[in-house]
Amino acid sequence: MKKIIKNGRIVTDSQVFKGDILIENGIIAAIGDTLSDPDAEIIDASEKYVLPGAVDVHTHMDLQAGKYRAVDDFYTGTVAAACGGTTSIVDHMAFGPKGCSLWHQVEEYHRLADGNAVVDYGFHGVIQHVTPSVLKEMEEISDNEGITSFKIYMTYDFMLKDDEIYQVLKKAKEAGIVIAVHCENDGVLNYLRKTYVEQGLTQPKYHPLSRPARCEAEAINRMLHLAAIAGGAPLYIVHLSSKEGLLEVQKAKASHQKHFAVETCTQYLTLTDSLYQDDQEGLKAIMSPPLRKEEDTQALWQALKDDVIDVVATDHCPFLFAGDKQAGAKNFTACPNGAPGVEERLRVLFSEGVMKGRITLPQMVKYLCTNPCRMYGLYPQKGTLLPGSDADIVILDPTKSRVLTHTDMHGACDYTCYEGWKVKGDIELVMLRGNVIVKDNHFLGEKGCGNYLKRQKSILV
Amino acid sequence: MKKIIKNGRIVTDSQVFKGDILIENGIIAAIGDTLSDPDAEIIDASEKYVLPGAVDVHTHMDLQAGKYRAVDDFYTGTVAAACGGTTSIVDHMAFGPKGCSLWHQVEEYHRLADGNAVVDYGFHGVIQHVTPSVLKEMEEISDNEGITSFKIYMTYDFMLKDDEIYQVLKKAKEAGIVIAVHCENDGVLNYLRKTYVEQGLTQPKYHPLSRPARCEAEAINRMLHLAAIAGGAPLYIVHLSSKEGLLEVQKAKASHQKHFAVETCTQYLTLTDSLYQDDQEGLKAIMSPPLRKEEDTQALWQALKDDVIDVVATDHCPFLFAGDKQAGAKNFTACPNGAPGVEERLRVLFSEGVMKGRITLPQMVKYLCTNPCRMYGLYPQKGTLLPGSDADIVILDPTKSRVLTHTDMHGACDYTCYEGWKVKGDIELVMLRGNVIVKDNHFLGEKGCGNYLKRQKSILV
Amino acid sequence: MKKIIKNGRIVTDSQVFKGDILIENGIIAAIGDTLSDPDAEIIDASEKYVLPGAVDVHTHMDLQAGKYRAVDDFYTGTVAAACGGTTSIVDHMAFGPKGCSLWHQVEEYHRLADGNAVVDYGFHGVIQHVTPSVLKEMEEISDNEGITSFKIYMTYDFMLKDDEIYQVLKKAKEAGIVIAVHCENDGVLNYLRKTYVEQGLTQPKYHPLSRPARCEAEAINRMLHLAAIAGGAPLYIVHLSSKEGLLEVQKAKASHQKHFAVETCTQYLTLTDSLYQDDQEGLKAIMSPPLRKEEDTQALWQALKDDVIDVVATDHCPFLFAGDKQAGAKNFTACPNGAPGVEERLRVLFSEGVMKGRITLPQMVKYLCTNPCRMYGLYPQKGTLLPGSDADIVILDPTKSRVLTHTDMHGACDYTCYEGWKVKGDIELVMLRGNVIVKDNHFLGEKGCGNYLKRQKSILV
Amino acid sequence: MKKIIKNGRIVTDSQVFKGDILIENGIIAAIGDTLSDPDAEIIDASEKYVLPGAVDVHTHMDLQAGKYRAVDDFYTGTVAAACGGTTSIVDHMAFGPKGCSLWHQVEEYHRLADGNAVVDYGFHGVIQHVTPSVLKEMEEISDNEGITSFKIYMTYDFMLKDDEIYQVLKKAKEAGIVIAVHCENDGVLNYLRKTYVEQGLTQPKYHPLSRPARCEAEAINRMLHLAAIAGGAPLYIVHLSSKEGLLEVQKAKASHQKHFAVETCTQYLTLTDSLYQDDQEGLKAIMSPPLRKEEDTQALWQALKDDVIDVVATDHCPFLFAGDKQAGAKNFTACPNGAPGVEERLRVLFSEGVMKGRITLPQMVKYLCTNPCRMYGLYPQKGTLLPGSDADIVILDPTKSRVLTHTDMHGACDYTCYEGWKVKGDIELVMLRGNVIVKDNHFLGEKGCGNYLKRQKSILV
Repeated sequence: MKKIIKNGRIVTDSQVFKGDILIENGIIAAIGDTLSDPDAEIIDASEKYVLPGAVDVHTHMDLQAGKYRAVDDFYTGTVAAACGGTTSIVDHMAFGPKGCSLWHQVEEYHRLADGNAVVDYGFHGVIQHVTPSVLKEMEEISDNEGITSFKIYMTYDFMLKDDEIYQVLKKAKEAGIVIAVHCENDGVLNYLRKTYVEQGLTQPKYHPLSRPARCEAEAINRMLHLAAIAGGAPLYIVHLSSKEGLLEVQKAKASHQKHFAVETCTQYLTLTDSLYQDDQEGLKAIMSPPLRKEEDTQALWQALKDDVIDVVATDHCPFLFAGDKQAGAKNFTACPNGAPGVEERLRVLFSEGVMKGRITLPQMVKYLCTNPCRMYGLYPQKGTLLPGSDADIVILDPTKSRVLTHTDMHGACDYTCYEGWKVKGDIELVMLRGNVIVKDNHFLGEKGCGNYLKRQKSILV
Repeated sequence: MKKIIKNGRIVTDSQVFKGDILIENGIIAAIGDTLSDPDAEIIDASEKYVLPGAVDVHTHMDLQAGKYRAVDDFYTGTVAAACGGTTSIVDHMAFGPKGCSLWHQVEEYHRLADGNAVVDYGFHGVIQHVTPSVLKEMEEISDNEGITSFKIYMTYDFMLKDDEIYQVLKKAKEAGIVIAVHCENDGVLNYLRKTYVEQGLTQPKYHPLSRPARCEAEAINRMLHLAAIAGGAPLYIVHLSSKEGLLEVQKAKASHQKHFAVETCTQYLTLTDSLYQDDQEGLKAIMSPPLRKEEDTQALWQALKDDVIDVVATDHCPFLFAGDKQAGAKNFTACPNGAPGVEERLRVLFSEGVMKGRITLPQMVKYLCTNPCRMYGLYPQKGTLLPGSDADIVILDPTKSRVLTHTDMHGACDYTCYEGWKVKGDIELVMLRGNVIVKDNHFLGEKGCGNYLKRQKSILV
Repeated sequence: MKKIIKNGRIVTDSQVFKGDILIENGIIAAIGDTLSDPDAEIIDASEKYVLPGAVDVHTHMDLQAGKYRAVDDFYTGTVAAACGGTTSIVDHMAFGPKGCSLWHQVEEYHRLADGNAVVDYGFHGVIQHVTPSVLKEMEEISDNEGITSFKIYMTYDFMLKDDEIYQVLKKAKEAGIVIAVHCENDGVLNYLRKTYVEQGLTQPKYHPLSRPARCEAEAINRMLHLAAIAGGAPLYIVHLSSKEGLLEVQKAKASHQKHFAVETCTQYLTLTDSLYQDDQEGLKAIMSPPLRKEEDTQALWQALKDDVIDVVATDHCPFLFAGDKQAGAKNFTACPNGAPGVEERLRVLFSEGVMKGRITLPQMVKYLCTNPCRMYGLYPQKGTLLPGSDADIVILDPTKSRVLTHTDMHGACDYTCYEGWKVKGDIELVMLRGNVIVKDNHFLGEKGCGNYLKRQKSILV
Repeated sequence: MKKIIKNGRIVTDSQVFKGDILIENGIIAAIGDTLSDPDAEIIDASEKYVLPGAVDVHTHMDLQAGKYRAVDDFYTGTVAAACGGTTSIVDHMAFGPKGCSLWHQVEEYHRLADGNAVVDYGFHGVIQHVTPSVLKEMEEISDNEGITSFKIYMTYDFMLKDDEIYQVLKKAKEAGIVIAVHCENDGVLNYLRKTYVEQGLTQPKYHPLSRPARCEAEAINRMLHLAAIAGGAPLYIVHLSSKEGLLEVQKAKASHQKHFAVETCTQYLTLTDSLYQDDQEGLKAIMSPPLRKEEDTQALWQALKDDVIDVVATDHCPFLFAGDKQAGAKNFTACPNGAPGVEERLRVLFSEGVMKGRITLPQMVKYLCTNPCRMYGLYPQKGTLLPGSDADIVILDPTKSRVLTHTDMHGACDYTCYEGWKVKGDIELVMLRGNVIVKDNHFLGEKGCGNYLKRQKSILV
């Protein structure tokens, strides 16, 4: 089966141009000025943007977090992703049982995802303790499973200590693996959490106060130094949220430190901690790191404009507002952390970023599509529109608009943080490997139509 | 006539990928994974890089400079360009008679170039005095001739004073015209020149001493302020040569000044003022600004790596070493300023830049092809490999190498500044609008095969 | 005659301490814990600050500016100075007749000041054209008259061009002379002035618009480069007014440029261009450079806090509001430039600076007393409280306060820019070489009691 | 008893001037132009510098470090201090028994010092675990003993964790106490030490490799963030050794962080890690942090010149080269850490700093005398030459010179790191509270002549 997308304004990470795209066997066969093929189905894209399918390299589908489980499994979560123009995800694994082999979660995640996911999917490994065998498994899993990145945490129960982090980084350098890291200073934030609870200050508004931006900045700087001491270990800083954290990144870039990349998420660009003022509404936005101030969002947009940040992801990890989230009503520390976002990302970034002139359209493609794939070994199969790449394609109509509302969304969660936001532009069609899986906000694919992605090495290596 | 370039590694300003390029009617018709057409001639590019034809936006063909005339006319100079992989130039006009209308040189340059040039060509206007009618002509010429950029000088006989510059910038802002500017402080450098001559210090080694890097830095900063006062007039700083000048550019970028671009030239990246120590050899490198120190070249390479500089051009302006250049043997101030470079640029930048890891291959394409066209209104017709773009293409073989020597070159000059340099990589084929005009260093085109380029407005507008 | 100032809180440029000061023959003989002398008159300073007499190195007494003459001559102006705690001035000469010898104004200024001034006084020479004989006179006058600094202008009728500036700087470097410079880009500001007048936009509010902050910044950067090219010529930038200008200074300091100092004036720290909105009141503040924005004042205070600026002076140059200033009522370009300030400086800086915590008390002494003397060769005779220094002393009572009003002031002008400002702290007594010349705002000295100051070389040399 | 020091060039932290100093009852009674008193002993200081006695706020006298004890007790160590021009020390306590009250070491240190010290002395407390009672004792000891600063460690056995540090900082903020901190990342350096030992890489040259500069930089940044989160807790970073660490300090200063000070030590300005190349000589320089590179020393000197560093101390902590140090001969990790330095500091800094033009003489006084006292609550009793201050005075002859050699020194150690260094300038006389305790390198005082110093609060509070 062949298809031709005609007359679109094709967008790559550096250019926008008019042209046609010929798709054969799920692959982009050609990009041309005027392509024709008698056997091809024609999809008209006149006056519309034709983008690579977006790639979300920070999701938590079916996540078990303590006693809570995120409500989107790999089916509902990827349907939401698809409807939001995201055609691949790289999911961050949950912690496994204490002391387990790294293989344990690899197997668990295949069980969860295989046959369910409707977009293509890969996994980031997770390291929750460090032993010689864990370090050995890192390399095995990277080589055999194409899981070429592992996540570590500087806070939470399974955080690694600095010497453990260092060992992981040394191994990562040696084996060409990217270490994705959640940067927050555990000592201070835990002390603050405890103190607030002891003082009975447990409303949502104490959540951001218990996790100051400087906790993030400190941890980012620490990781950058550790990675440099480890000889330039490939490092990927997830969900940068603050101006203070950004300053550390800028300092490292100014001194020409290499081998690291930085991600922020939609919510840190668009939402602020004013949301926590309402005791109920605030629960919806309890996530870590927390939302910050207006000036932080401005600094992050400027950093995207200046190419200082590399990726915009979501940290998608939803819990029911009418359900588990209410555990936080009396105590923010009891609230499961996370919020939905995988479906909102592209629309919000296009409207708030591109249409408001904060970033260019090629920059959006770079941050949502191309760079995530470069950083995580999916490029050029994914994340771009090149001959030979998978025909993962989004057609976006900039003249339309949409009011975001939970009822029009496709995930399992019962709310969106963007309820009532009017966004400019809308997604008309989403194609996965040449198959139209979404049209006009309707999912047309089949359960399990997503393929597992064995990944190559990152360009950070 | 159709052609297919098969199996090349196609390079754009952000990506490198394997593919085929179909050319029809001198235009890139399609880029594909595997293209075939029974009517098409096949050009095999396996294991080779396929680049957009390079664009040199700073040449001085057939330049009358005082009593000297540059030895390359539009024929010999563009043959040299073509053999060096450059398929379009935008030439900087010489000054006309004192007080002349701007149209005078426009007409003169058509006379010089039309029927002679073998690559496509446009002109930058030149402003040598400021009157209401000159300001009016700027806009007319921009609208009617597609000459959407004008050059001004802060030194030399026809330099403009600050109030004149300001008026030009205001007009440029209003009419959407780019002002290209030669930045050096005239007062100091002329005083120094005079003083050296009075003291009998006239060897080539006094040339760089008479034009300190801070003269450049000062003038750059001045222009940036004037352009900002004029409301953000589109500004293009030509031939940045020094670390000091770069510091001024970085300061402006750090404060988020917009609407300006910066060019350096091959020679400022690769040659140093040690060349002036030899009284004869030094003459070959007498140009303005002069060559600088090793640390300046390093700073400029780093700036290319960091995307702080936008364009690499040549300021090609050759005079015979055995001829006019000897006027400087007794007195550097009597020496015609300039050197050849249009043929060397791509080879030198690939070898010294890409192969030495100072910049990436897409960065090279950005600085030699895409950005020059964006800055000067030729994009996307030129400077990129998109469907619909002119099929100006260079095939480069990275496994070959070449020793640069004047005898293998094609311009009218009797020397190259790179005599004996061994460069990695070589140009196999050059195509202009689908026609092979160079093969294995032989020019195959016809005199006058270059077209005049009416340019659009710059993205700096 | 001996005097002892008892129990004061003595302030130097780095320390505040309790102690007594013994004065003999107009000189500080000793500073002690508890000094006594049966022959000494005792002046009690308990709970009060004892400061060095302030030194104003930027005044324009009896200035002839075109057809206007500043209303304070050396008598009235220095009475005002004395009553404001200023015990020495270094006055900037007016231009002399076109082409005159430098000696012309030296003689003229002795005529104006000798026998009139009531505080000690020196002169800055002024250079209005550059010839070999002028350069020679610079050195003679420096050697013979102790006029070790000369002023140049980058705008106004007698501005120097860059090559002339360079020659002056070379000579200054060679002869150990400081060049004080008024930095504004003449070309642009004159063009803007003309344009505003042609368009009939002549109210005071167009005054600041005709002299953008970037005109100052440009000129500052230019001077810094010229001084560096001249081998590190001693440079003193007068009346810095803007954040943009400050950025240039900071850049130079960050790159460790030496041999230059920077002055701002009271008004640029405390007043803003909002004053120009009123057509009449605005006339009072017409000066060059003009007053700037709130954010400029904040940046300048921060720079004082961070020791980036060296001196706070006044540019005292008053014209009658009911008189000559009205020439500007119909056209700001016809208005004599300048305002009173010599009497207000210390009180305003103490109240707005020290009492508001923007600078420390030793910093105030550094900027008003010690640094001006260091920069201009008066230290340690003036500007500090050391044994052997002249007993120029101010006693300031921090517990008092005062409402500034023209009627309580002592100059010849008919207004103050600070009318109605309530300042914390007041001057109780001012001593010049051991003689009390001001008590409780009454001038007690005699006409002509000021001495001429032959100055040493600057520490910038 | 009265004394007059005649005709010296008196040096404060900002000025140098000629004058006499009258001393009565151990106090500076007066500073005068020409003082005389028939009862006074006259000490001629013509052509010599008269400085405040230096103050070393980082010594470890009689330190018990694991199984080793520093060889200088409070007698020998302070004799050495005195002979080196240091008239006061603030000693860093050793750790006490695990879990002990803070009072334990206070009492222990009085036992060690009282009756032994020959210069005035104070103590920094040390915090080795954090409990509510420890936090309470901090305040008690500060209030009752005048021990207004406490040391914490980010490495070593009694290091505090981040949450403990945070609690200490909160208390410090509340009680107005300075926290002095040893900044190195414990996790990485311990891992590296272990790894080197496991690999049999135990020569001294592995000591610096096991403690990379980035370990220091990381920890400094962490402390700065923690202090800021604690609301601006008074922070004092000890022994800054590296350019990387300095970059963190500069970043904090650029963002206007307040309430912190930075110390470096003589050795980090003057010695480099090349010393570790010799297996035996290297032992002499085993200290933590280790010596760094030439470029680090240059960066630190520049920081002193630019007033970015506040204090130069010594970390004096000697062990016998022929004794305990040899424990490191087979294994650098077994070597007691530390070296002598209290006697060398002033001479080395004067010669290497002032005489080589890297810092000015007033800057030297600021870093060795005035600032240490300001930071630690001894000012103005100590650290300056003001009426009322203790007559702790050093007379230094800049025309003499000396070859530093251990045999001329006075401490108990058997080596100096500066053996054979020729220093310009020499100490002629040292006075403690008016008593000459050192003359021409001979100690003339009596055992126990030093007084305990109850300190005030720091200016950092």
